[in-house]
Amino acid sequence: MNALKINFNRLMQELEELAQIGRDPRGGISRPSFSLPDLEARRWFKQKIEEAGLTFRQDGAGNIFGRLPGNTDQVVLAGSHLDTVVNGGRYDGAVGVLAALECLRTIKENRLCLKKTLEVVSFTDEEGNLVGDFLGSRAFTGQLAERVVKNARTQFGHSLEEILQKAGLSTESLLKAASERPEISAYLELHIEQGPVLEEEGVPIGLVTSIAGKRYYQATFVGKPGHAGTTPLELRQDAFVGLADFTLKATQLVARKYYGNTLTIGRVILKPGAFSIIPGEADFTLDMRSLDADSLRAMEEEVLALAADIASTRGLAFYRQLVDSTDAVHLDRRLINRLAELCSALGYEYRLIQSGAGHDAQILSAFCPTAMIFIPSPDGLSHSPEESINPEDLEKAANLLLQALVALGSE
Amino acid sequence: MNALKINFNRLMQELEELAQIGRDPRGGISRPSFSLPDLEARRWFKQKIEEAGLTFRQDGAGNIFGRLPGNTDQVVLAGSHLDTVVNGGRYDGAVGVLAALECLRTIKENRLCLKKTLEVVSFTDEEGNLVGDFLGSRAFTGQLAERVVKNARTQFGHSLEEILQKAGLSTESLLKAASERPEISAYLELHIEQGPVLEEEGVPIGLVTSIAGKRYYQATFVGKPGHAGTTPLELRQDAFVGLADFTLKATQLVARKYYGNTLTIGRVILKPGAFSIIPGEADFTLDMRSLDADSLRAMEEEVLALAADIASTRGLAFYRQLVDSTDAVHLDRRLINRLAELCSALGYEYRLIQSGAGHDAQILSAFCPTAMIFIPSPDGLSHSPEESINPEDLEKAANLLLQALVALGSE
Repeated sequence: MNALKINFNRLMQELEELAQIGRDPRGGISRPSFSLPDLEARRWFKQKIEEAGLTFRQDGAGNIFGRLPGNTDQVVLAGSHLDTVVNGGRYDGAVGVLAALECLRTIKENRLCLKKTLEVVSFTDEEGNLVGDFLGSRAFTGQLAERVVKNARTQFGHSLEEILQKAGLSTESLLKAASERPEISAYLELHIEQGPVLEEEGVPIGLVTSIAGKRYYQATFVGKPGHAGTTPLELRQDAFVGLADFTLKATQLVARKYYGNTLTIGRVILKPGAFSIIPGEADFTLDMRSLDADSLRAMEEEVLALAADIASTRGLAFYRQLVDSTDAVHLDRRLINRLAELCSALGYEYRLIQSGAGHDAQILSAFCPTAMIFIPSPDGLSHSPEESINPEDLEKAANLLLQALVALGSE
Repeated sequence: MNALKINFNRLMQELEELAQIGRDPRGGISRPSFSLPDLEARRWFKQKIEEAGLTFRQDGAGNIFGRLPGNTDQVVLAGSHLDTVVNGGRYDGAVGVLAALECLRTIKENRLCLKKTLEVVSFTDEEGNLVGDFLGSRAFTGQLAERVVKNARTQFGHSLEEILQKAGLSTESLLKAASERPEISAYLELHIEQGPVLEEEGVPIGLVTSIAGKRYYQATFVGKPGHAGTTPLELRQDAFVGLADFTLKATQLVARKYYGNTLTIGRVILKPGAFSIIPGEADFTLDMRSLDADSLRAMEEEVLALAADIASTRGLAFYRQLVDSTDAVHLDRRLINRLAELCSALGYEYRLIQSGAGHDAQILSAFCPTAMIFIPSPDGLSHSPEESINPEDLEKAANLLLQALVALGSE
């Protein structure tokens, strides 16, 4: 193995610079795709790409690439995303993009001539602030359905079309992004774990074997509103008591019968939503995940049947709408082995790990050999202003990525 | 008994006029105290009082009176409130004020000379949109604590002081309102039932024997937020699962051990409140009511202990703040008997009834002999744009109120 190392101080300096863009007075960083801070981050990233002597390119989905040409046009791609959730942290996504940039810069500075072309990528709207997760990587790989984006409205009140047009794009350019794509021979993504496993075991590097699939539903129990003081308990059709019953029973069902899967109700809105009025409507989000596609499907079916059953027992109606759906994927066994060998050669401890969180890598994996490198998330925190990393973990992971790019680029 | 009858068409016409003030494009009527629509309704009501030849008066709490002088200064008072909840109905409060106005106008037009002075009243903020229920009647009867109103903030963002000052009042004038009060010998309030009992039994008039006491708490379970995909179910401190558990167990406890009492969770806010994040905090409102003071206290204690117990079992913290508290009251037995006799004389069917909803009458009852007349609420609906009445019920109840005012005014 070569003795190549990244310039870690420069990487940390750039992470610090990026963390100043989109700082939210309410805490953390708010940089949803195509917001003013995201547009600023895109300009900043373009400048970094050009300063590094890489070729800047943006596709019809707003995905940004920095290219280091090799002897062939076959591309080894590495990156992640620069967008964040509202009040998010400074490492989720950012470490993957900036580590890849640093790797390409190091290779260029050291004048390594590789057989394959290398590209760093920042995918648009990984966080799904606009119309569902992974907009950019779905567009890039041709996995975006026209019906999802045409006439789509975003949580910010504007249509997707309006938002794209402000950034010089359109739903049409989005749907054509896949046609501009070069030939990709592998995709590598470095990311924070967003969970507690690596930290608890004191291991600096996780090699991801599979990524959970999920189902997002927006759902509602509908009962009958009424005055809190005048309607006896036994005559009520209280939509929230129905939701409480469902929440407990569904959680127990998953814990007992689908051990390892998760079910989360993260947002609840009661209507009319007053102190003294029995809730006539309980709107809620339902997030179900599993590392096994069959298990996810079976759990989904049983949980929805449970909701319908509780509704019927309690004189309520139950409605649900599927908002987003991904299937569990297994990442590329050969790439994982390659990364494991490189870890051993570098003297880095690693372990195999599964990802409960979703990543662009799961979209790419349907399309090209894909692997992910995790670093520990102290306290398991992510999507939070308190999100953090241990710098020494990132340094190791970025050098692993560097060696992997050199190795794959030489094949 | 005299053959006096109110002019029912005029009363219905005025209810229709009033219902145009504060119509909300989102449905129903929004006329919280001292909002622009409420100020308009106050001007409209003042004009009606003066057109009827009654003497207009407003006290330091913004309570509005129309006076028909008798041979003594002792006052028989009748009324209710003109304010509404947001997106409320057109009858809650309004029927009591306008029926009393119509009664006084009928008595004046018929030149009846009574021993006692009669007054119609509209109390300020019965609905508690500013700083808790019954602000006006509490001020009127000297039951308003200085600490509740000084530096109080309202749900509309402004302080109570700012809102009062825009209406030419102040917290100081509010606290002095009781000193302007004449001697009151009785209070009568006509109101919609806001429950299903009278309609189900097909009885047009309810004579209220007691009004439930209540406890309003603003409460919170605090757990630990986390990524929905990466935190196993068994390691979560999910604040919402805690609330769901509490909601079910508390509801079951009340249904089983405190039969007849009620417990309602009408508003829930989860934080951070995102699809893919385990709720770290579940804020909720807790409304508990009982017609028996001892039962209310026992239930309150046991429900709060249950919440603390669930929090401790599930690794959560539980916090609560008492927002409002009233005790159950019994209305005046002699007045109820008097109204019952008048019903019989008028040939109106009636039944005795308890009120689960709160009313200014429960504040007045601590201070002077008080009675309430209920009319049926079709479908039990109130605090809703769909709130309605059967006109024939209102006609009977208003004529009963008229006879009661004449009888009590003659004593």
